[in-house]
Amino acid sequence: MELSLYTHPDDFSEAEAKGKIVVVVDVLRASSTILQACESGVERIIPVATVEEAAKLLATLERKKTLLGGEREGLPIDGFDLGNSPLEYTSKVVKGKTLIFTTSNGTVAIARSSSAKEILLGCFLNLSAVVTHIISSRAKKVAVLCAGDLGRLSLEDFVCAGHLVGRIVAGTRASTVLNDGAVAASALANALGDVGDAVKGSSHGLRLAELGFEEDLEFCSRVDRYATVPIVEDGRISLNNRIRR
Amino acid sequence: MELSLYTHPDDFSEAEAKGKIVVVVDVLRASSTILQACESGVERIIPVATVEEAAKLLATLERKKTLLGGEREGLPIDGFDLGNSPLEYTSKVVKGKTLIFTTSNGTVAIARSSSAKEILLGCFLNLSAVVTHIISSRAKKVAVLCAGDLGRLSLEDFVCAGHLVGRIVAGTRASTVLNDGAVAASALANALGDVGDAVKGSSHGLRLAELGFEEDLEFCSRVDRYATVPIVEDGRISLNNRIRR
Repeated sequence: MELSLYTHPDDFSEAEAKGKIVVVVDVLRASSTILQACESGVERIIPVATVEEAAKLLATLERKKTLLGGEREGLPIDGFDLGNSPLEYTSKVVKGKTLIFTTSNGTVAIARSSSAKEILLGCFLNLSAVVTHIISSRAKKVAVLCAGDLGRLSLEDFVCAGHLVGRIVAGTRASTVLNDGAVAASALANALGDVGDAVKGSSHGLRLAELGFEEDLEFCSRVDRYATVPIVEDGRISLNNRIRR
Repeated sequence: MELSLYTHPDDFSEAEAKGKIVVVVDVLRASSTILQACESGVERIIPVATVEEAAKLLATLERKKTLLGGEREGLPIDGFDLGNSPLEYTSKVVKGKTLIFTTSNGTVAIARSSSAKEILLGCFLNLSAVVTHIISSRAKKVAVLCAGDLGRLSLEDFVCAGHLVGRIVAGTRASTVLNDGAVAASALANALGDVGDAVKGSSHGLRLAELGFEEDLEFCSRVDRYATVPIVEDGRISLNNRIRR
């Protein structure tokens, strides 16, 4: 298995996604929030890269059954129903709804992966489920794409991606060829202790804490809370198309 | 001190370089080779980003006193006098000469830093000298810019940069604010053992070994062989403008 890690979407081209399973890792918070929305029974999620795309898409859908969610600079977007805190995405709010979702980093990474064979969303909340799926898929080429922080390496994504790499290498019988990013991240993940410290100590984590989202940091640091993996297919994540492990 | 690390030049803009001391880290091999050329008494080095620039510049200089050096895809460039192996840059060959130098990653990183307050070249060979200079400069903003490998994180640069960060943090009395890249790289450097293993095990190291440059890997892994720091000033590195520690 060729297992490559990219520190942020600018490192990654659509051409490179081709034929690969791509795991988009956005711990704070797109992957975590999308997963939480799925667990809360959202009917489908349509990730889009810009606020304008979200507005255009909304005009084509039934408003009562549709929610607009996401953030810019960590904060809810004017006129949107929901922000990017996973804690907002309860059953009561999202069950049976369509969610149009746009964030600064995560949905950009998803868009960059559009030519992949399969796009999965990974975070600490579903770490083992992603690992188990990758190993059992016997994929030949896997890319772990960190959403990063505005075009830079972000500690929480890099560490989470490193844990994914380390566990895949440990669990697969196939030989693995890692790129330098994968070697560095898995060695780092192995060396660090509690993942919560990396999440809280990251620059993104510190910024979110300042904005009052401390609870999100705790929530997004929980390893293996869920055993499902959201899949993006034809630009959608739908309730009936998740991997359960 | 604000101490930020960038995994490769695409992460870094000229605007960000402004007002900062920038340390360009290209272990394999531009920083190491430029340093070796300085130690061997080259009169001045003019780093350029492209082969075309090198040819144009050569036409304006005295051919007998000028050398063309560098690489593309790790190999010497057609018509050039020297490749990018530090071992070629002996006193006999370079003393008193002007060297026009272009490489795939390192000279690109130097070009990207042009608006910096000061541009230094760092590698394992002069690790302590760079650290000592940064600490004694009492700089407020320092950027450690890894040359990387064709727009990706490269293990050898990331680890070397991590050692720089770790030693600066340990040695300075000023409080330091690190970005996520700096936190990740210094924790990784701290966790790994022998730097030679990171250099040899990196994808760039493996490629150079295949091309027959094993000796370069040994050479570039030697920590603190030299106590000088090349400075790029007005696009030149000159014999009389190096920092000696």
